[in-house]
Amino acid sequence: MADIAAQAGVSISTVSKVLHGRSDVSAKTRGKVQRLLGQHGYTLPGRHEQPGGLVEFVINELDNPWAVELIRGAEDALQAEGFGMVVSAVHRRSNLARRWLDNLTSRGSLGAILAISELSAEQERELGQLGIPFVEVQPSADQGPDVPSVGSTSWNGGFTATRHLIELGHRRIAMITGPAHRLTSRARLDGYRAALDQAGLEVDPTLIRHGDYSHEPSYQHALELLDRPDRPTAVFAGNDLQALGTYRAARRLGLRVPEDLSVVGFDDLPFAQWVAPTLTTVRQPLANMAAVAARMLVQLINGQEPETLRVELATSLVVRASTAPVSPHFPDRGQA
Amino acid sequence: MADIAAQAGVSISTVSKVLHGRSDVSAKTRGKVQRLLGQHGYTLPGRHEQPGGLVEFVINELDNPWAVELIRGAEDALQAEGFGMVVSAVHRRSNLARRWLDNLTSRGSLGAILAISELSAEQERELGQLGIPFVEVQPSADQGPDVPSVGSTSWNGGFTATRHLIELGHRRIAMITGPAHRLTSRARLDGYRAALDQAGLEVDPTLIRHGDYSHEPSYQHALELLDRPDRPTAVFAGNDLQALGTYRAARRLGLRVPEDLSVVGFDDLPFAQWVAPTLTTVRQPLANMAAVAARMLVQLINGQEPETLRVELATSLVVRASTAPVSPHFPDRGQA
Repeated sequence: MADIAAQAGVSISTVSKVLHGRSDVSAKTRGKVQRLLGQHGYTLPGRHEQPGGLVEFVINELDNPWAVELIRGAEDALQAEGFGMVVSAVHRRSNLARRWLDNLTSRGSLGAILAISELSAEQERELGQLGIPFVEVQPSADQGPDVPSVGSTSWNGGFTATRHLIELGHRRIAMITGPAHRLTSRARLDGYRAALDQAGLEVDPTLIRHGDYSHEPSYQHALELLDRPDRPTAVFAGNDLQALGTYRAARRLGLRVPEDLSVVGFDDLPFAQWVAPTLTTVRQPLANMAAVAARMLVQLINGQEPETLRVELATSLVVRASTAPVSPHFPDRGQA
Repeated sequence: MADIAAQAGVSISTVSKVLHGRSDVSAKTRGKVQRLLGQHGYTLPGRHEQPGGLVEFVINELDNPWAVELIRGAEDALQAEGFGMVVSAVHRRSNLARRWLDNLTSRGSLGAILAISELSAEQERELGQLGIPFVEVQPSADQGPDVPSVGSTSWNGGFTATRHLIELGHRRIAMITGPAHRLTSRARLDGYRAALDQAGLEVDPTLIRHGDYSHEPSYQHALELLDRPDRPTAVFAGNDLQALGTYRAARRLGLRVPEDLSVVGFDDLPFAQWVAPTLTTVRQPLANMAAVAARMLVQLINGQEPETLRVELATSLVVRASTAPVSPHFPDRGQA
């Protein structure tokens, strides 16, 4: 143990703490010590084999259909590993995040999956000090290379969706996306721009709108975009709810999807197959993202080093009935 | 303490256990002792004031939009009371329910909200023996008057929905509902029958179909119902997903909603407002039902007696665009 303490640059008592699975060691130190212990032939008790071990799942709001996809994926993976999952909503309020951190300590949770779009630097430091590993799902801000995270290939999704519309002959393609400061929105928008660039099409900034990924604002944005004489012939929406808001605006203005307007969404939530017309959308494997995050977290809890700390799962375009070749009559109809 | 033990008919050590908040006392005994202690002026430590106390939320599947409504309501109420909520899906598999019961004990959970449609008598007895109070949300089977539960007025919802269609002039009204053995399905169906009876209309058993509350089977049922020469002019669906399945079948057969077919759903999930046409549906306050169950559970954990052990929250009809007066041309069109 003295050897390992020396190699890790920590005290013998710290090595002992790690050996006994105590939680008052930082995740980084624990990881280092556990790796050395492993190299020296020690078998570490798998902490997750203690029955009833807890992991936290934290999200901002529980009011949307993708929350249940993430919960399902994380719960499924954690249950298979013998963990219980405590679900908390923090509603973007720092006092709730504070209380969550206090409660997490009292209940002895071993790790956290963070599906919240913003984690303050202070909260992150605190988790580190508590020695509680965490993994972010779909982080909205870049937390640096050391912060474990699982996302999806947002840029590629934006690129593929836009290229699909270009291949159908669309030239005026609008985008209604999420908040400008969120990385996922930014990546989808950059993918959209890249596809237009590659096709030699100019990016018209008046065709780009930032909503908040919910229904009502996207409906308003779509109404404005579609009520112009030079209206777009296609809308790429930053998520499926925004696509439904676009459907509603089109109906309100008497435009038919896909005859008068093509619409592409993002997420492929179950309802995308149930609406009329069925929605062409970029599939984001939400449940699988949460499951991968959960398994990565279990590795960290057990002191194993994940192969990579940052994972992006592939998105894929699912073509359904909401996209069609641009109408040959469009110039007339658009200017009518 | 000896007095209280004598009055409660238990040992002094049991009274002591209750005073110290130990969990190895049955819920029934604990309740009795706590009431007597309260009458004798003892102030009981509110167990939920211990930070990080845990409560279980158990559901069969996390793959549907009402799961997130229930989780949201329960989490919100429990967070306000200082509890953490562990979410588990048992997928109707007894080995998972078994594992959940084992884990619940290890993590020292103080109570459980059961949103699973079937709880075996054995599991229920086991929870009782562990002294862990539980409340059922929308129970699908009658567990007897002693089992605390929160539901909604399903019969009344079925009655109101059907009467709305009758008032619009519909006479051939089909119902696509959930499994026949579930109480909620049965109550909705009985409400439908009662409304028809009251209007002097005959119940046509060939117009009643049992699905499983999911999309695909309801689509198949609706296709069969709507493809008959004597097709119904209205469908009352047992939930909103089944209503969407009915929309899809109508589109497939070239029937317009609501001109050719009126449709009523049940639940009022968020998407009911976003689909076209917007869905007339029976609003069931899912999040509130789970919140009421959570608060009732906290009372039971604290040894308080809820005013009533069985609560049904009111449902209400939300009229939107999917229902309209029956078409005067119907007889011709129906037989065409």
